[in-house]
Amino acid sequence: MSAKNFADRLLSLMDELQNPCCIGLDTRISFVPSFIKQEAAEKEDDAFEAASDAILEFNRRIVDATYDLVPCYKINSAFYELYGKHGIKAMKKTIKHIKKKGRVIILDVKRNDIGSTAEAYANAYLGRVELCDGTKTKSYFDVDAITVNPYLGSDGVLPFMEACKNYGKGIFVLVKTSNPSSSELQDRTLEQGDVLLFHLVSRKVDEWGQELVGSEYGYSSVGMVVGATFPEHAKICRNLAPRAIVLVPGYGAQGATARDVVHNFNDDGLGAIIHSARGVIAAYKTEKFGMPEEKFEEAARNATIEMIRDVLNALRHENKCRW
Amino acid sequence: MSAKNFADRLLSLMDELQNPCCIGLDTRISFVPSFIKQEAAEKEDDAFEAASDAILEFNRRIVDATYDLVPCYKINSAFYELYGKHGIKAMKKTIKHIKKKGRVIILDVKRNDIGSTAEAYANAYLGRVELCDGTKTKSYFDVDAITVNPYLGSDGVLPFMEACKNYGKGIFVLVKTSNPSSSELQDRTLEQGDVLLFHLVSRKVDEWGQELVGSEYGYSSVGMVVGATFPEHAKICRNLAPRAIVLVPGYGAQGATARDVVHNFNDDGLGAIIHSARGVIAAYKTEKFGMPEEKFEEAARNATIEMIRDVLNALRHENKCRW
Repeated sequence: MSAKNFADRLLSLMDELQNPCCIGLDTRISFVPSFIKQEAAEKEDDAFEAASDAILEFNRRIVDATYDLVPCYKINSAFYELYGKHGIKAMKKTIKHIKKKGRVIILDVKRNDIGSTAEAYANAYLGRVELCDGTKTKSYFDVDAITVNPYLGSDGVLPFMEACKNYGKGIFVLVKTSNPSSSELQDRTLEQGDVLLFHLVSRKVDEWGQELVGSEYGYSSVGMVVGATFPEHAKICRNLAPRAIVLVPGYGAQGATARDVVHNFNDDGLGAIIHSARGVIAAYKTEKFGMPEEKFEEAARNATIEMIRDVLNALRHENKCRW
Repeated sequence: MSAKNFADRLLSLMDELQNPCCIGLDTRISFVPSFIKQEAAEKEDDAFEAASDAILEFNRRIVDATYDLVPCYKINSAFYELYGKHGIKAMKKTIKHIKKKGRVIILDVKRNDIGSTAEAYANAYLGRVELCDGTKTKSYFDVDAITVNPYLGSDGVLPFMEACKNYGKGIFVLVKTSNPSSSELQDRTLEQGDVLLFHLVSRKVDEWGQELVGSEYGYSSVGMVVGATFPEHAKICRNLAPRAIVLVPGYGAQGATARDVVHNFNDDGLGAIIHSARGVIAAYKTEKFGMPEEKFEEAARNATIEMIRDVLNALRHENKCRW
């Protein structure tokens, strides 16, 4: 209970670094420059271990080249689970490296389950786990926040909130995702009133979040994921859950612009995290920031600086920039 | 493409073993007898590794004591993710052990994402993964089927279906979960007609599954999860997606009886997998099958035999038993 509220921690770091941007370590092996892959493959016979080593080395260099710029990193678990225990080790070491730099880590796992299973997921990523002697003293991943899928209802969210309360952590509940077919379920109109399913989920997020509002900034540690690709929907979510921090995917590579993402912010210039993965970490492969692969860190840094400038300009244009 | 259809493989194994039951390896450390935990803790200094070793030893013994009875095991990923890379190793070794016994493995991971991330999850658990040299030749987990959450719509399901097609695998889509608050989203009435959200998802499952119907039994490799705790809802799902195999949690420890689960079967006596975890693997701790912890395997075996008898009797009562 004494752990500092997650939302307060994240927002004070945004104030310190003067931007709300987040780099996504969705590190596909195809993003890793060939010289890193070759070196890893030469050192290590096990193909899963070599791939994981290459990904870890890439991540460390990206973090070293960008941590002075951004408050937050998001790690996409899928690209680590690919390599089994080897990938999980690389993920854990990436987490450790980011922690040393004092930055917030959101683990994008989209977990969902009920009862004791949800509790197990919550403890795995946010809390402490039970060991052979019955004690609960150790944490394995210990990230700051994870993403959670709400399809199972409150039973699938409350166990995660327990971990948030006990350990000062946060969750981001999927509300309106950035993909075209997100409309199939999330945009269905419900019988009562003129309400779409994702409106209902936004309201739930607001309700769940009440007891985790931080004293410093007034935002909740129960946030939500709202894709940047549907700006009109973003406005609605913003209104229905005003204290939730919105994790916004879709900027850059998925086609949304800085003008699209401003709707996720409140008038105080806070309330959203703008996230880019491929657009930053694979910037060296793009036309705009293209560089020889040996300079991938420099390209990532340039893309990050450009992203921050772009987002802050759009906020200024709407009179919402606090920095 | 040449891999045998998952549904055909599963159903022929059910015919061979003459029952549709599945044991859940939701192995919490608290289920593991203390003599196994002590031995593991003495052999291994690392507390995560010791816990994982104890869980693996427990699983192996449960499988050895029951594999001649059941066609299928379900592994709940949460209880392995708890211990990071150590737990993942125990999970992989459990998978390997079950494979040697020739039984089907469903990994309950409830994954969900879009585009290349969903593809990564699909490849992680069902397919092959890309390595440093750019080849895709190795599989890490390589289970027969996984569970998938549908909240993201078709974009979040189709990449998993690709893996099903390419590697002869299956998925079970969450439709109506067994928990009380599953009604919050899943039972919402939609504007068009008298349709609840989970009806819509059942229809989607039917639609997605069309191209993965097996030639031998006529069932699809796109199945669905429908909790046993709402029998009326189970009938509706059964009708809306007649070719989907229903993975049914909730029997036993969660309160549903064999009479409740029969609604998930078609008249041919097929179409459902009845799953019990705690009721079997922790049977030695119950009043009904209670035994000293040294005999936990015997208790698990007795509970399995009783479960099979119970389910088959209920099916016979409805004239739906084919064995």
